[in-house]
Amino acid sequence: MGYERARIAAMQGYVPGKQPTSPDVIKLNTNENPYPPSPAVMHAIHAVLPEALRKYPSPAADGFRAVAAKVHDAHGLALDNVVAVNGGDELLRMAIATFVEPGQRIGTVEPSYSLYPVLAEAHGSPVFSIDAQDDFSLPGDTAERMNAAGVKLLFIVCPHAPSGQLTKVAELSRVASAFKGVVLVDEAYIDFVDPALGHDATELVKKHDNVLLLRTLSKGYSLAGLRFGYGLGAESLIAPMLWKTRDSYNVDALAQAAATAALENRAYAQASWERVRSERVRLRDALAALGFRVHPSQSNFVLAHVPARKNARALRDQLEQHGLLVRYFDAPRIDDALRITVGTEAQNDRLVAALQTLLT
Amino acid sequence: MGYERARIAAMQGYVPGKQPTSPDVIKLNTNENPYPPSPAVMHAIHAVLPEALRKYPSPAADGFRAVAAKVHDAHGLALDNVVAVNGGDELLRMAIATFVEPGQRIGTVEPSYSLYPVLAEAHGSPVFSIDAQDDFSLPGDTAERMNAAGVKLLFIVCPHAPSGQLTKVAELSRVASAFKGVVLVDEAYIDFVDPALGHDATELVKKHDNVLLLRTLSKGYSLAGLRFGYGLGAESLIAPMLWKTRDSYNVDALAQAAATAALENRAYAQASWERVRSERVRLRDALAALGFRVHPSQSNFVLAHVPARKNARALRDQLEQHGLLVRYFDAPRIDDALRITVGTEAQNDRLVAALQTLLT
Repeated sequence: MGYERARIAAMQGYVPGKQPTSPDVIKLNTNENPYPPSPAVMHAIHAVLPEALRKYPSPAADGFRAVAAKVHDAHGLALDNVVAVNGGDELLRMAIATFVEPGQRIGTVEPSYSLYPVLAEAHGSPVFSIDAQDDFSLPGDTAERMNAAGVKLLFIVCPHAPSGQLTKVAELSRVASAFKGVVLVDEAYIDFVDPALGHDATELVKKHDNVLLLRTLSKGYSLAGLRFGYGLGAESLIAPMLWKTRDSYNVDALAQAAATAALENRAYAQASWERVRSERVRLRDALAALGFRVHPSQSNFVLAHVPARKNARALRDQLEQHGLLVRYFDAPRIDDALRITVGTEAQNDRLVAALQTLLT
Repeated sequence: MGYERARIAAMQGYVPGKQPTSPDVIKLNTNENPYPPSPAVMHAIHAVLPEALRKYPSPAADGFRAVAAKVHDAHGLALDNVVAVNGGDELLRMAIATFVEPGQRIGTVEPSYSLYPVLAEAHGSPVFSIDAQDDFSLPGDTAERMNAAGVKLLFIVCPHAPSGQLTKVAELSRVASAFKGVVLVDEAYIDFVDPALGHDATELVKKHDNVLLLRTLSKGYSLAGLRFGYGLGAESLIAPMLWKTRDSYNVDALAQAAATAALENRAYAQASWERVRSERVRLRDALAALGFRVHPSQSNFVLAHVPARKNARALRDQLEQHGLLVRYFDAPRIDDALRITVGTEAQNDRLVAALQTLLT
């Protein structure tokens, strides 16, 4: 009846987590960093002159890309290995538009980010999904099954969402070697991985011409409101997105300035990551003491299966009445769990206290 | 050889106009407004708190949409008639993704914006184009020819680029009535139309469920660096883009604040439009006196055919050596012309003086 394509009319859009405007609500539902962005970011924004807004920005965000390349130069990455995007979501959509013909398959390992199938549906690509293992790690034969199904683009979120499970770099490398299409490793939460683990997937970019890493400033750099991310990959993988399928000026002058400052001042953000890791342990222990089964997490959230005979959805609703938002997914294997963002010490205390009241 | 789709490998990307960073260059090549954005815009940017960047922004830019609806409420437009986008280019891409199946045709009236065929090619949609009339107005049988060719989405840029020719609202209405698909009227330059003409296409939104108007803050509001635009259309036309094909958080918190302030302070921008119109007349007369044939323009640029026995491309290059950038298109019917942005009084004087030197 409308003018939209039949598949658009038939599909369901993505439903983002609740974004209440009241400052009294404690938001532990959309994995924002609980600590503020670097003052250097605010300075950079305030230093943008009217003249820089009047004119078009650098089309490909060259200044930002140069700084990003420098951050990752330990593995020999350079300007042409980087594409800047208007939030990580834009890279997901661009990767689909660039590497997958409508009708060809996109692969996921479930559970995972609920936006992937929405983007696939809009493009006209069926999703082929396999189940993660019981601990949410990748099945050993992931690449082989994806190849057999004719998958062209495989989404792997690492650390895994919503569990926080970390896939080792060697395992990602094995998948990239065996898989015949493009592997997009969604590293939205990578900054929260314990540095003692020595996890660094950027080495895969030089080893494999089919690995695309997604980075975002939304979580690690406390800049979800800025919409800025970037992709890292072989020059041959990045070039078609950078020069052909990217919107001609996809990131604005303010965002370029802010994102560049954020990366130049990584030390400030790194301090917040350390605090999140320390709170992550405390939150996990407190939840375990309340009877939750909590997955080991290398992210800024934990997946906590509710105690026996409790209902996760009801508990989510009860917490909301206490002014505490957490995320519930009505999906197989996780519908008995809550995904809880690691907040500040005070926020986590508030959550644990509320749960204590509700569960006893 | 690469992983990208065959059509992406084969296509040419869009080439934006030159964006030199030197402040000494006079840029009359990409149609920026020569006057600065409103101080209220800068205030709004400086008032954005770190907390607003830490958290996700309003997914659909509700605050901006409310203000945009108010600006256009003379014709009964409301929140659901507005979609906010990351620059007008995003609306062009979204309209294609929403309303056109790959393989179905997209219509243009040539010459027009060179980005249209690039976006069509990336989507997999052949372009069906017809020639504008000698004065660059729409052929009277545009809708009928587009229908006969099976076109699903028709791009009409109004005022026309690169000529500045204005298509009357009644004529656009006639096309919308007769055309069976969606008409996207690209109003990137609408703010520079002489108000004495009483031109207002927003009335078409209520009359026709297939008219999508594209507005941008890049030109009229001196905010090309901000990447902010919006679409106006019937609720049924806007909804699939707003809730399904739009990236989940497509405009960032800073841009939302700045764009909202820009629309709330239209009077400041309107004063710049008046100055551009006044300079447009002066520039046209000066060019005509030098032997150029200049199209009547309702935009912030003029299309000037070079005097007989002069070469437009060579003249463009000579002007560049004088530190003056203008746009040349190697395309039928306009390859003997320069498209010159209306600059400030001083910039236009510099251009005319340089042309005087070069042509005599």
